[in-house]
Amino acid sequence: MSKQDNGGTEAGMTSLAVVRHRDGEVRPDRDLVAEETPVALVFNGISHAVMMATPLDLERLAVGFALSEGIVARRAEIFDVEADFVAGGTEVRLEIAQPAFLALKDRRRSLEGRTGCGVCGIESLALLDLAPEAIAKPARPVIAEAAAIVRAAAELPAHQRLMKATGCAHAAAWCGRDGEVRAVFEDVGRHNALDKLIGWLALEGMDPGDGFAFMSSRASYELARKCARAGIPLLATISAPTSLAVDIARRAGVALASFCRQNGFVEYTA
Amino acid sequence: MSKQDNGGTEAGMTSLAVVRHRDGEVRPDRDLVAEETPVALVFNGISHAVMMATPLDLERLAVGFALSEGIVARRAEIFDVEADFVAGGTEVRLEIAQPAFLALKDRRRSLEGRTGCGVCGIESLALLDLAPEAIAKPARPVIAEAAAIVRAAAELPAHQRLMKATGCAHAAAWCGRDGEVRAVFEDVGRHNALDKLIGWLALEGMDPGDGFAFMSSRASYELARKCARAGIPLLATISAPTSLAVDIARRAGVALASFCRQNGFVEYTA
Repeated sequence: MSKQDNGGTEAGMTSLAVVRHRDGEVRPDRDLVAEETPVALVFNGISHAVMMATPLDLERLAVGFALSEGIVARRAEIFDVEADFVAGGTEVRLEIAQPAFLALKDRRRSLEGRTGCGVCGIESLALLDLAPEAIAKPARPVIAEAAAIVRAAAELPAHQRLMKATGCAHAAAWCGRDGEVRAVFEDVGRHNALDKLIGWLALEGMDPGDGFAFMSSRASYELARKCARAGIPLLATISAPTSLAVDIARRAGVALASFCRQNGFVEYTA
Repeated sequence: MSKQDNGGTEAGMTSLAVVRHRDGEVRPDRDLVAEETPVALVFNGISHAVMMATPLDLERLAVGFALSEGIVARRAEIFDVEADFVAGGTEVRLEIAQPAFLALKDRRRSLEGRTGCGVCGIESLALLDLAPEAIAKPARPVIAEAAAIVRAAAELPAHQRLMKATGCAHAAAWCGRDGEVRAVFEDVGRHNALDKLIGWLALEGMDPGDGFAFMSSRASYELARKCARAGIPLLATISAPTSLAVDIARRAGVALASFCRQNGFVEYTA
């Protein structure tokens, strides 16, 4: 892994004193580490959730989270978004349409007393609902994208600024139908990285059906579900999927390609 | 990444029909994928949380989770643990000491109405408390472990059965002071893998201060905090740490070594 330490600190990373051990030699040094800070999401003045995220693109993160978690159904229901550094972290305040806010308040009421871990807010199997929304337009067959996926795999590394510096960041890339990497968002959390991408698509008014998401990570079921909610027809990942990710992708109609490298990939939803 | 498909299905993995694309060739094939299923933790008859985990070592997972999340302070407070397959997943039922159960009920009451995501159960920055427990015994300086860390890095891959088959599993290894890999637990989630290790240590009556945890993953702040709660003095990881992982490890007195490879590592808590 190539790591660079320019002695300074760029956005999203911090420089720490470390001790390097290599081939029996020991020497003090400095190392760049990816930042992870608390981010609170506040909807219409009510604090809803705190997540740990890399402090880059936080307004995009908040918009993407609102869309991919079904808090709003479309971009037009978000009137305003603003991130502010506060004591202890960052607050991102969103103003959303009243019906969406009322639905969120209802959802919170129905979740009262639940303290789930892992599957947020869920405390028993009976309450678990993993059913994904089917995406609006049928996914085009992945096979048509073979050259595009291979192209994206080749182009992505050059865009991974935070990964190159710290060795600790996932990337979510938006790729055109031809596989050209158009935009890349990084975060220590892969779900955050995808939410930043989804927020960017929404804020830029891009068509999520006109390209695909390429992730540097494994494929988790949450990533497949977020793509379904955002209307992204194809999720490509460098590493492996889990069984549930394949299941959710198949049920949602999201095409899933994993182990995407410069010489090929594996298609799980043919 | 070496992947094997023996056509059958072993514990923790499932075989799926896929389409392989390689160097322009396309062929149908089968692929082994790591399983991820819902696991409900039930304390004294009350369902507490659902997490997604690989269905291996689930009783160890539950015991480790109870210890590393502070639900019980010590192994002796867990009287019984039993995993059962039920509709929709697996239930692991624990019987814990009454004071610990009452404290858990109090904690649940004080969390009512919160629907946090990412930092479970927390809805606003004001409620966030990342302060780790300091571990009971001071960590021995990592430098003394240099040869042990390098040995563990060399030995681990041979023990990663699920990773080798699926390309999608994290490993948590328990290593002796000399770096010998004594036990390895795998899961699609790195926190689950560590909880399985912590549960195994407790159930076997092993001294968590007499060795170290070696993880195939990055170092997240949750891993550092879990080690602190479990009394593990050294966390070694193959990949990078985040800034918060370093911060928590330093505050807790857990030694943190990352980028652990066969020729060296980086020490973040010297």
